[in-house]
Amino acid sequence: MGRVSTEAEHLRRELAAYYAADVLIVDQDRVEKYRRDRAEDPRAGVPLAVIRAESTEHVQAALRFATLHGIPVVPRGAGSGLSGGATAIDGCLVVSLERMKGLAVDKVARVAYVEPGVINSELKAAAAAHGLWYPPDPSSFEISSIGGNVATNAGGLCCLKYGTTGDYVLGLTVVLASGAVVEVGGPRLKDAAGLNLTRLFVGSEGVLGIVTRAILRLVPRQDPVTTVVASFPTLIAATDAVAEIMKQTRPSMLEFMDRVAINAVEDMTGMGLDRTAAALLVIQSDEPASSSSVEQRTIANICQVGGATEVFATTDAEEAEAFVVARRLAVPAVERLGSLLLEDVGVPLSALGTLVDGVAAIADAQAVTIALIAHAGDGNTHPLIVFDPADNDCADRARQAFDDIMRLALSLGGTITGEHGVGRLKQPWLTAYLGPEVHELNRVLKNALDPRGILNPGAAV
Amino acid sequence: MGRVSTEAEHLRRELAAYYAADVLIVDQDRVEKYRRDRAEDPRAGVPLAVIRAESTEHVQAALRFATLHGIPVVPRGAGSGLSGGATAIDGCLVVSLERMKGLAVDKVARVAYVEPGVINSELKAAAAAHGLWYPPDPSSFEISSIGGNVATNAGGLCCLKYGTTGDYVLGLTVVLASGAVVEVGGPRLKDAAGLNLTRLFVGSEGVLGIVTRAILRLVPRQDPVTTVVASFPTLIAATDAVAEIMKQTRPSMLEFMDRVAINAVEDMTGMGLDRTAAALLVIQSDEPASSSSVEQRTIANICQVGGATEVFATTDAEEAEAFVVARRLAVPAVERLGSLLLEDVGVPLSALGTLVDGVAAIADAQAVTIALIAHAGDGNTHPLIVFDPADNDCADRARQAFDDIMRLALSLGGTITGEHGVGRLKQPWLTAYLGPEVHELNRVLKNALDPRGILNPGAAV
Repeated sequence: MGRVSTEAEHLRRELAAYYAADVLIVDQDRVEKYRRDRAEDPRAGVPLAVIRAESTEHVQAALRFATLHGIPVVPRGAGSGLSGGATAIDGCLVVSLERMKGLAVDKVARVAYVEPGVINSELKAAAAAHGLWYPPDPSSFEISSIGGNVATNAGGLCCLKYGTTGDYVLGLTVVLASGAVVEVGGPRLKDAAGLNLTRLFVGSEGVLGIVTRAILRLVPRQDPVTTVVASFPTLIAATDAVAEIMKQTRPSMLEFMDRVAINAVEDMTGMGLDRTAAALLVIQSDEPASSSSVEQRTIANICQVGGATEVFATTDAEEAEAFVVARRLAVPAVERLGSLLLEDVGVPLSALGTLVDGVAAIADAQAVTIALIAHAGDGNTHPLIVFDPADNDCADRARQAFDDIMRLALSLGGTITGEHGVGRLKQPWLTAYLGPEVHELNRVLKNALDPRGILNPGAAV
Repeated sequence: MGRVSTEAEHLRRELAAYYAADVLIVDQDRVEKYRRDRAEDPRAGVPLAVIRAESTEHVQAALRFATLHGIPVVPRGAGSGLSGGATAIDGCLVVSLERMKGLAVDKVARVAYVEPGVINSELKAAAAAHGLWYPPDPSSFEISSIGGNVATNAGGLCCLKYGTTGDYVLGLTVVLASGAVVEVGGPRLKDAAGLNLTRLFVGSEGVLGIVTRAILRLVPRQDPVTTVVASFPTLIAATDAVAEIMKQTRPSMLEFMDRVAINAVEDMTGMGLDRTAAALLVIQSDEPASSSSVEQRTIANICQVGGATEVFATTDAEEAEAFVVARRLAVPAVERLGSLLLEDVGVPLSALGTLVDGVAAIADAQAVTIALIAHAGDGNTHPLIVFDPADNDCADRARQAFDDIMRLALSLGGTITGEHGVGRLKQPWLTAYLGPEVHELNRVLKNALDPRGILNPGAAV
């Protein structure tokens, strides 16, 4: 123990010789807040040190140091991840990108040059100042950083029409495990030269390299939205409506809340949601000008024909915003019922009804409360399993439900994570999902780029 | 020589023991048509044999055989590639996927399961039969196969709004160099589990594996288009209009032809194009219903304000089709002037004007005719360099112009290939484009997946 801590002291002195005191954190009380992300993993380790990088060079030095000493590195954005991708490991270097906030918009080329610490909403605001739009909108957009968004290929609400983060990443500056810096892709809208390394790094959760700059595609500003809110008496009526809406229209949002979620939000807001509804859909169209109203009427009609008990349509953005906020509030609202295990399973659209029904059956079988919210238009659901951490039996049943839901999704041809990433939380299910051959292929690529295995070990692959 | 041919005979006998006579081609006269793609590389080698695979198992057997004997394999789709990605190598196995034509549409999940030999237009037709749409539309859509489209991440005319082939690939069945079969991705619209192998295989030109099935995303059918055709007195007026249109609107097509191309098409069609114009833009909007007319008016206005000498607008699809056909005819029309070196350089939108001007200057300096057509909305240009192959001096100047254009594109932060792929034709420029570190990274990945280097050696990376 004495030897270990002497060794740690030696390593920390070496780091202190390179990094300014403000960049390097070694005090245990200050290190504490860098040990976990929002997965709140109780098994989080204690880092050797935290480096709050301010430049690509700071990241390079950290990786050279880590390679030299064989020390694991855990990259970290805003710490808003839900899968434990940024959970610290004992003796690791945490490389925090929170201070790298550079941001420049080239409005003619329609791209933004963005450092990883920039918050998603800050980029949206910068694009809007030039009459442009950065579409990706994870629910965490006000607290999650572009670095983390890129690392997880973050989705969100509008991605059913506009795609996920990766669809906007044209180029990346990446520090490899060795400390070498590469620039892949660039501010070109089309490029067929060489392997698509940009897309390989997107969603790789820091196991292939650390991104220190992204070149992101911007698009013309979004047109005003129209909104339909519909309550359904049964789950199947709601998921059938989802399939029909997706077949006939191009909604810019198609969100789903089940009865548990509706009631939790109603408890919190008292906004007058129908507590008896089995499910609520919030659907938006951003087709321009009058077409939006045409699409809105089509959507409203599908809901009506599909048996909705109430259909509310508005072109008023503020009026609509209340329902979007209600949907965004679902997680904190359900959190008031107890601790949560937050799922992120996704299935082919044709299996959405079966998945939603199956989750309800699992809640019954395990006698736990599960609220289900979903980015329904792309088949990506978030069952929120409520449990009392002080009640061991209840916690066990919640974990069993978590496992059951993942198995159900797999049996329906679904994924164990639609948008949050594998992190450390879902790693145990990865082989079952990918199959041993594809999982091995992931590791072959990981090993090719990080032969010493220092980059975020235990996460993603 | 005798020994070599005996060895070849021995290998061919081994293949004949496995493959039906109809699948295996070894006769030199029948092999001939599998030696080249549309790059028409005069250095094309003579294959040991051609396997016209009918199943994943046929491809597996070919790769196992090739691995066992250390024989290079050149995969081949419809042979419509323009970069020599399917140019045969002496003694190689050509694995042709032309016979794998399986195609099934799941209209609820909104995906198509497509074997590589299916022609792009066949997939479009199958989707349309279900009221759905497969957007990617390379100019070759009536002759190029999905396998080739996936291998090159093919672009086209509508990709400025709807993205390239890769944006529609949800999953792939791939035979690896070893003969092992993996299924990556699947019919899920969102998936954050594991590395994005699907995107890595897309555009990899057969150097990482051979695709035997693709799961492709379909979208609701396209709305009727409105069209604007505008003639400009100067190149810069036209490219400035392109930038402004892309900033303010979301066109579904924005095509460019310069004076040489206009005149070649007019010679061929006599349709009444303005021969004195420096450039012609063909711009379409597919915004739904009346919004399309709003967008059309905005586009027409931008052209007018931008100095267009003539602006023609129509909502009549047939009337518009004449101009789209004119644009598609540009390559065959210019081909009537002589042999062509076909470029595919792309630049950031902000550099489009400089590139277009620079190509004109190169034509002057090298005293060669260059027609320039472009998918202008994403900065992807196709300078067509005309030369007389019987005139050595002229051919040399054409090759010099080809090189000059690539260097110009590089100096403007552009790519050496926007959508055709590197193949063998552009391989010599790849290091200059990627830089040695990124090029090496390409090779690290290639070697990790194909350690014996049997998959399409000499192409892509």
